[in-house]
Amino acid sequence: MPSTNQAFLLTARPVGLPRATDWQLVARDVPPLGPDEVHVAVEYISLDPAMRGWMNAGRSYVPPVGVGEVMRALGAGRVVASTSPSFAPGDAVTGVLGVQTHAVVPAAGLTKVDVARAPLQRYLGVLGMTGLTACFGLLEVGRPRPGDTVVVSAAAGAVGSVVGQIARIQGCRVVGIAGSPGKCQRLRDAYGFDATIDYKAEDVIAALRRECPKGIDVFFDNVGGTILEAALANLARHARVVICGAIAQYNATEPSPGPANYMALLVQRARMEGFVVFDYAERYAAALADLAGWLEAGQLVAHEDVVEGLDRFPDALLRLFRGENEGKLVLHVG
Amino acid sequence: MPSTNQAFLLTARPVGLPRATDWQLVARDVPPLGPDEVHVAVEYISLDPAMRGWMNAGRSYVPPVGVGEVMRALGAGRVVASTSPSFAPGDAVTGVLGVQTHAVVPAAGLTKVDVARAPLQRYLGVLGMTGLTACFGLLEVGRPRPGDTVVVSAAAGAVGSVVGQIARIQGCRVVGIAGSPGKCQRLRDAYGFDATIDYKAEDVIAALRRECPKGIDVFFDNVGGTILEAALANLARHARVVICGAIAQYNATEPSPGPANYMALLVQRARMEGFVVFDYAERYAAALADLAGWLEAGQLVAHEDVVEGLDRFPDALLRLFRGENEGKLVLHVG
Repeated sequence: MPSTNQAFLLTARPVGLPRATDWQLVARDVPPLGPDEVHVAVEYISLDPAMRGWMNAGRSYVPPVGVGEVMRALGAGRVVASTSPSFAPGDAVTGVLGVQTHAVVPAAGLTKVDVARAPLQRYLGVLGMTGLTACFGLLEVGRPRPGDTVVVSAAAGAVGSVVGQIARIQGCRVVGIAGSPGKCQRLRDAYGFDATIDYKAEDVIAALRRECPKGIDVFFDNVGGTILEAALANLARHARVVICGAIAQYNATEPSPGPANYMALLVQRARMEGFVVFDYAERYAAALADLAGWLEAGQLVAHEDVVEGLDRFPDALLRLFRGENEGKLVLHVG
Repeated sequence: MPSTNQAFLLTARPVGLPRATDWQLVARDVPPLGPDEVHVAVEYISLDPAMRGWMNAGRSYVPPVGVGEVMRALGAGRVVASTSPSFAPGDAVTGVLGVQTHAVVPAAGLTKVDVARAPLQRYLGVLGMTGLTACFGLLEVGRPRPGDTVVVSAAAGAVGSVVGQIARIQGCRVVGIAGSPGKCQRLRDAYGFDATIDYKAEDVIAALRRECPKGIDVFFDNVGGTILEAALANLARHARVVICGAIAQYNATEPSPGPANYMALLVQRARMEGFVVFDYAERYAAALADLAGWLEAGQLVAHEDVVEGLDRFPDALLRLFRGENEGKLVLHVG
């Protein structure tokens, strides 16, 4: 007897902030499995700023979600049925499962995970693409050295909180920029940041000058806009600016201005570099082993911010853009 | 009997384009030599876009010229007198000599050059800081590989014309952006550029798409502004953007917008990096040997654009910002 799938389809390309009416929640039968396919009962859905970009027409580093298609999302769940020898019912898996309760996907796109070692949702956070993004972006692009001053924007967010902790493990002085006193306190108390800046309460240029008296060696940017400019104004010589995201402009309805002071890159002989984590796929396993080791040694703290119920997807996604989440935001399908 | 020195002093910090009244031409005695000093009769003065930045208050990669001081400039000339054992009357030298007819400078700041091998003014161009800037910026920061597509802005200028030729020598496809049909023709005919774009006559984004069908691997930028944005819109994956200058904004009276599409660095996993040639001082000799070798083998063409007469300094400098020079602009003191 076929299961029923509840799925959010993209119905409109948003202008500015997405609205609930940009998706439609539909119920339909789960299709029969083709060769080498797996039916997964989705348990957790990853909510990521990048999802806003996937809703736009025009190719970025991945093609857009088509109007009428299931909204794209990373997810974690349990195998219900499989025509692949690699997966059996009951296996815990992650992959691009979509915003839905039941996914039928090619076996090649799934990764088996060990729920005896960590709870399933953590494989969407520190032990998944979030942790990998932090790891490769910081270590491969930012190349921090012990004693460096590392500044992270959106530091209380999923990627930022991991970046700061890895930088601390590398022996760096870590400064986090976040948007409330509570977030700043958690960065210091729970994640071991050396200093924090509340960008809603302070002048960020002046605060960075105070907290980074020798300048910024590595700036890991998730935000863009005036936060990026403030960091460029405080670079140390030979600084590295890692471009991971630009959440400040994802919902802009007019072109966002670029960093007016980019010539700081010349004055400070600095570089600004973007990356996409997929390029490091061959090295995921080694990085995940590092992340798991740091977690088990208590050097790295994982935090998931769980919203209950598939139907709350539109509002849960907006929490990212309102800066309301702390740590990795996931939707529990239940 | 002391010689008389004619010197341009900075008398005002310009807002926007400099005016002739921002300097004052004065005559005064050449001071007596202190220990390890050299009196140089200046023959050629180098005119560089960077001089505009030196006129502003506020430290950049070098301190500003003080109001009332001799305007800073690189120059070439002949030793008249010396208290240093390293220099004798008649020696040809280059150094930071200032915009004046007679300079008294520390011996440590001078470099002896061989006028039997190349005319004196060439040591301000291809065989001087211009050639070194092109060499280190392109080869060390841009890291071109044979077959790469290299795009140069202000390609008919002093640095740009050398960058394009070195890229050609490295086996790259070279595309130059310049501001007139005549300049574009010279780039192709005299310097061996594969293709050119007249930014005053064409849409640069579309022209770059046409001339760089596989995208830009290295963009060497002397201009900034909309030219930089057009290049970012056409990057190949893993592209390198070399920030050498931003002549489009040196005379701006309001903050210039930064590159709005800098997130192309993420999508294309690209890097944008600035440099200052002084950092490579230990390797000048090797690079100058390469440049001289290419010149002597006929692989590299040098071109100096000579303006006669010290008194024409203010207008000659403005020619740079009006895009009127081709190749290295120098003032002949005569």
